[in-house]
Amino acid sequence: MTKEYDIVVIGGGPAGTAVAGGLKAQGKSVLIVEADLWGGTCPNRGCDPKKILLSAVEAQQRAKNLQGHGLTGVPTVDWPALMTTKRGYTDGINDGTLSGLQGQKIATLHGQATFNADGTLQVGDETVSGTDYVIATGQRPTILPVEGQEYFKTSTDFLDLDTMPKRVTFVGGGYVGFELATIARAAGAEVHLIHHNDRPLKAFDTEHVQALMGQLTEQGITFDLNVDLQRITKQPDGLHLTAADGFDLTTDLVICSAGRQPNVDHLGLANVGVTVNRGGVQVNDHLQTANPHIYAIGDVSDTPVPKLTPVAGYEARYLVGELTQPAAAITYPVIPTEVYAEPKLAEVGITTAKASEDSARYQVNTLDMTHWFTYYRLQTPKALAKVVVDRQSGLVVGASFLSEIADEMINYVMTLIQQKVTLAELQKLIWAYPTPASDLQYLV
Amino acid sequence: MTKEYDIVVIGGGPAGTAVAGGLKAQGKSVLIVEADLWGGTCPNRGCDPKKILLSAVEAQQRAKNLQGHGLTGVPTVDWPALMTTKRGYTDGINDGTLSGLQGQKIATLHGQATFNADGTLQVGDETVSGTDYVIATGQRPTILPVEGQEYFKTSTDFLDLDTMPKRVTFVGGGYVGFELATIARAAGAEVHLIHHNDRPLKAFDTEHVQALMGQLTEQGITFDLNVDLQRITKQPDGLHLTAADGFDLTTDLVICSAGRQPNVDHLGLANVGVTVNRGGVQVNDHLQTANPHIYAIGDVSDTPVPKLTPVAGYEARYLVGELTQPAAAITYPVIPTEVYAEPKLAEVGITTAKASEDSARYQVNTLDMTHWFTYYRLQTPKALAKVVVDRQSGLVVGASFLSEIADEMINYVMTLIQQKVTLAELQKLIWAYPTPASDLQYLV
Repeated sequence: MTKEYDIVVIGGGPAGTAVAGGLKAQGKSVLIVEADLWGGTCPNRGCDPKKILLSAVEAQQRAKNLQGHGLTGVPTVDWPALMTTKRGYTDGINDGTLSGLQGQKIATLHGQATFNADGTLQVGDETVSGTDYVIATGQRPTILPVEGQEYFKTSTDFLDLDTMPKRVTFVGGGYVGFELATIARAAGAEVHLIHHNDRPLKAFDTEHVQALMGQLTEQGITFDLNVDLQRITKQPDGLHLTAADGFDLTTDLVICSAGRQPNVDHLGLANVGVTVNRGGVQVNDHLQTANPHIYAIGDVSDTPVPKLTPVAGYEARYLVGELTQPAAAITYPVIPTEVYAEPKLAEVGITTAKASEDSARYQVNTLDMTHWFTYYRLQTPKALAKVVVDRQSGLVVGASFLSEIADEMINYVMTLIQQKVTLAELQKLIWAYPTPASDLQYLV
Repeated sequence: MTKEYDIVVIGGGPAGTAVAGGLKAQGKSVLIVEADLWGGTCPNRGCDPKKILLSAVEAQQRAKNLQGHGLTGVPTVDWPALMTTKRGYTDGINDGTLSGLQGQKIATLHGQATFNADGTLQVGDETVSGTDYVIATGQRPTILPVEGQEYFKTSTDFLDLDTMPKRVTFVGGGYVGFELATIARAAGAEVHLIHHNDRPLKAFDTEHVQALMGQLTEQGITFDLNVDLQRITKQPDGLHLTAADGFDLTTDLVICSAGRQPNVDHLGLANVGVTVNRGGVQVNDHLQTANPHIYAIGDVSDTPVPKLTPVAGYEARYLVGELTQPAAAITYPVIPTEVYAEPKLAEVGITTAKASEDSARYQVNTLDMTHWFTYYRLQTPKALAKVVVDRQSGLVVGASFLSEIADEMINYVMTLIQQKVTLAELQKLIWAYPTPASDLQYLV
């Protein structure tokens, strides 16, 4: 017998649980299906555990920067204890998420969901149907198709390592590679990061990426640029990573950090006319797929915005509205993106690259803040900012920050951009002083 | 011969230099007079040096909190090196400020300024006059009139100590006492804080103050409450601080942290009809004294707002406008106030005390955030918040935070209050995740 629901949500991560909860609160009957861990990537094996591990790195780096300037002694990372702290958080996520859903009286099913040709959904032995469906299955790490790819581990493995190997190598210089390389290095590993060209973190400001790599190099990370990995072989002294021109690196652990891909393979999307491309499930500006009763939100959907947890939540809130009272197409606010290395690199709004292509319209203020009070007191090795200002309105429309507090700065600047705060208005705000926020008036 | 200027500013601190610079930029002829250090209290012996010293405390505390949770080893405070770092900043302030003024072609005079009976101003041998005058002489620490008061040192002395004594005692539980006690304790001193009643930091939320004292007590600070100091005597084993009921505390250094008082004594204000009360120079809501050609701004003026550096800057900007194109009375935005101890205590807007007096109008959300992700990852011992919401509008109108990142939180909440951001609008902002800012939606 086919159980029928108003809404069937496929995927129990941040996007799926938010849309399920929101629609249930609107009186809909809702089923949510998860094939793996309830809670999804972010709290189980993404942002949250990563930032727990990073907390030790941040505290260590802060102490390092003050050596000779007021502090003596640098704490060392105790990886097993740090992992216990991480698991103290992650171990409760699956059950906590599931009981949260049950507490909201949302029906749950665990298993792989596949659309049948008649439009119903198969989850193991169960067949269910929904008036509407929401695909929110997220992404997973891409594994590069090189010889010996079976030796690749992923960020998921790294974030749950019982012990830190002596030698760790990351293949792929996106934000995941940079972040986990920073953690591995602080935990004492010899760390390499291999990237196929000389421009890792390509979405970020070139000079700021260079400065970040400079600092990570000083911390002991080796960047192997312009290396196109060809082969991984297991030999008595470790895993050998080889490439053209005699590149041969021996390592104990190799993490493939070369991007992520949408989880669409087993959904039977072709059965229901849902189309997919490299960026994920194709949706229109109402987050609706080619099948008008099937929607896709969060990391799995092919939208023009970064795939981030708060974006998933934003899309979920939009879709709750759309499925209860259809309205306008989705529009997005400015979205900050960040590399949680140490230092951190963050940007928001109009990129510096785009601004310099249109210098009639945009002015870029380039600031070396290293000797500003905020950074002097922390003895920050380098603090950089670029602020993009719209010449006509005088409003800030974009920014890039490199420093240990880039996350704080980018959140302030996001607010200035989104709320269209002018310099005159900014000077009417009184911030706690001296704090990073009280520097804002000097950025414009 | 009397030199004449459009504007004579008395006091070369943040208020005075800002008003001088602003008026000079408007084409006025400007003289600024300073009796002590150019730059004033804030950068020489106030907020800035204090926060440089605090940076070591913060880094140490961050490492302490993670002991057993991912870090091993707690750095110790190297006081002489920390003092060198502080002086690396403060030593350049006097000359830097002076040359900055000279670079703006502002006339400068060094010496004590006193109004003559004819309305001119005497600075040593020089007599000068201005069409208008601005008093911006700030405040200094109050010395309690107890027997042996000559043994008192002040925050100025503490912030420039070559070595940290073994035993340090603060008399007066305002923000200065709490902040410097935190620093002294982290630097290894045995620290007492004496307060005349049982309610130090009286402007702040009672429960949050209690929690702060609880944490500082755990760090080893002794609070001697309900102690009205009577006498300081020098004896072979140290300074004895005595009070009723046999209170007798021996210490090596005693700092009077019982408030601050306006610098008005030598200005000859009676000669020019300027009135003063306990709060400072009396001004109307155009910052004008009883003498219509004399204004007062910054810490020295008796205004209904906290005496803080950014408030001084705000008043200076107002007065630049007022003295070039007179307009409306001054109005102030919401102003965050903060105790930079470790943890930090910060509040803004409607206080919780006021809110509970008017519970028909205000709702107070009381939150223990200790187990929230943001604080779990830092292993913060305690993170508390109270958020005051206006029942009718649903807007946040006040808040108090206790945590190591209370300064960051209070700045975000100040912005929400000032910009009148509703919860619905808040949910349309996408913050970097997970960051303290992404917790904002859970506060309302």
